[in-house]
Amino acid sequence: MLPRITLLATGGTIASQQTDQGLMPLTTAAGILEFMPSLKDLADLKAQDVFMLDSSNIQPEEWQLLARAVQEAARDADGIVITHGTDTMAYTASALSFMLPGITIPVMFTGSQLPLHHPHSDAPGNLREAFAMALSGRAGVFVAFQHKVIYGTRAVKMRTLGFDAFDSINLPPVGTFDAVGLHLEDEPAPCPAFDPGEDPLAIDPKVFLLKMMPGTNPDIFDHILKAGYRGLVLEAFGLGGLHYIRRNLIDSLRKISSAGVITLVTTQCLYEKADFNIYEVGKGFQVPGIYGAHDMTTEAAVTKLMWALGDIKKRQPLLTQCLAHEMCFLE
Amino acid sequence: MLPRITLLATGGTIASQQTDQGLMPLTTAAGILEFMPSLKDLADLKAQDVFMLDSSNIQPEEWQLLARAVQEAARDADGIVITHGTDTMAYTASALSFMLPGITIPVMFTGSQLPLHHPHSDAPGNLREAFAMALSGRAGVFVAFQHKVIYGTRAVKMRTLGFDAFDSINLPPVGTFDAVGLHLEDEPAPCPAFDPGEDPLAIDPKVFLLKMMPGTNPDIFDHILKAGYRGLVLEAFGLGGLHYIRRNLIDSLRKISSAGVITLVTTQCLYEKADFNIYEVGKGFQVPGIYGAHDMTTEAAVTKLMWALGDIKKRQPLLTQCLAHEMCFLE
Repeated sequence: MLPRITLLATGGTIASQQTDQGLMPLTTAAGILEFMPSLKDLADLKAQDVFMLDSSNIQPEEWQLLARAVQEAARDADGIVITHGTDTMAYTASALSFMLPGITIPVMFTGSQLPLHHPHSDAPGNLREAFAMALSGRAGVFVAFQHKVIYGTRAVKMRTLGFDAFDSINLPPVGTFDAVGLHLEDEPAPCPAFDPGEDPLAIDPKVFLLKMMPGTNPDIFDHILKAGYRGLVLEAFGLGGLHYIRRNLIDSLRKISSAGVITLVTTQCLYEKADFNIYEVGKGFQVPGIYGAHDMTTEAAVTKLMWALGDIKKRQPLLTQCLAHEMCFLE
Repeated sequence: MLPRITLLATGGTIASQQTDQGLMPLTTAAGILEFMPSLKDLADLKAQDVFMLDSSNIQPEEWQLLARAVQEAARDADGIVITHGTDTMAYTASALSFMLPGITIPVMFTGSQLPLHHPHSDAPGNLREAFAMALSGRAGVFVAFQHKVIYGTRAVKMRTLGFDAFDSINLPPVGTFDAVGLHLEDEPAPCPAFDPGEDPLAIDPKVFLLKMMPGTNPDIFDHILKAGYRGLVLEAFGLGGLHYIRRNLIDSLRKISSAGVITLVTTQCLYEKADFNIYEVGKGFQVPGIYGAHDMTTEAAVTKLMWALGDIKKRQPLLTQCLAHEMCFLE
């Protein structure tokens, strides 16, 4: 008996066709499988359309729809492949990594930089590699793209046009492909078990993402309070720097923290960790409700904080724990 | 007669010393030169302290102080070396690239990941390389760091701890160093001449930097209007995507544009260009006052927009021109 793989389609460039309004996602899950007839030799296939969106339009509400579709499909599948636009794939893959902590099969995100039907498309190769990893039995949420398999919490879209669109940030890829096939790294030590609360899919999108620039005005912190945001992901400078001369952002940060807004401080540097214990400008952060994001990507920090806010009593302590390979604590 | 080099010190890790409050910048320009006695064999040296700050505290007001110090020092120098913290060096170098369009000598930014006095410091090597490029006669504003020379408008801080802290984004480095010394690339075609207006140093920091995430709430656009921002740099998804389902950011963008806020749309992908003409979700941007940042870094987009707002009548047309090698128009 062949292993069972379910394809969940969500739109994206891979499904796009040229229209008068520009490229629009139109190809269905069944249409994708039809285009790839050799896949049925590898697996017993099912196809399902979850939604049909450009991934710029995929938001926390769609993450929940998709996570539910994965939970249902996982009941009778040995692996799941999700086709998704590249623009927000890293966010969705990271969100689902937190929302599906007990997943026991491979959940593979893939997509392409050119539509499936384009003569030079990268879609057939990416689909083949996603299916290969879906057949591996390795549990978890991953992105498969251009010969790399990346943890959902470690993927970042690096290039707007190049086929090698995703990198694995601050952790080597889980697997790579060459002419021989998939080379899977040894499974790392599992993240410690945790209790996600009653509804693992509960999530609160009321998070603001603030990328610092020199001269960032403290008025944004007043807005964050007034508009009722419950969380802030702050992309600080370097290891975690903020300015406090003339425009005192450290005071602003303290103010929103006392008001109960939970802050994850990350860095706008792509590589390596945030650590605000090293410099004098970072010392002011050491107040309750402000957490270092360590070596998490911004995509992981945003989705982890939204997810934590979905059941803050249970999940606040999890902000400083590694849940889905999103953080390493090596020096 | 030796060439004349002026060292302008601004603080930063390179100047830092350990204190009870963490690392703080304390070493002066004269102290830096004292530590590097061999430099006086290469050049007739001057040392000047412009300010003494962790670069997280360096903001547009400091850019103006520093630009003025460069203008004055340039009167009797063949090259200028500026020591600066790494956290915001890319922003300052980019800002000065726009503020000093007529500069006829090399203006070199450098710094280090470890203080000058640390036994493993990268500061001596970076200083030597900055001085070598300062002696090259090549006009412009550059960052010299860990064996690379990068246009001020192309530098991005990539690593929080690694010595190879900066990369040249979307353009190869201007020069590289090996055991032989500096290998300078051929000078590219100069950017077209332009008129920066009466005061090239005029700049307006009233710019908001908004990095998109899935679920970004349109209320931030209301805040941008109410708080009197004149410019917005929008880090969109991929080639320039924004969501418009449930949370309609395309309408929001149109609204602030009609109110006169000038927007530069860039991408949160590190590499390659933004181009919102390709996908249906980007088509809504084609209204006056919204410009594609093309392949500019976010650092370049923020500083160019602040600078453009300093004399918007003269400089608005310059937003779509390459002024300091910050944009390429190659497909």
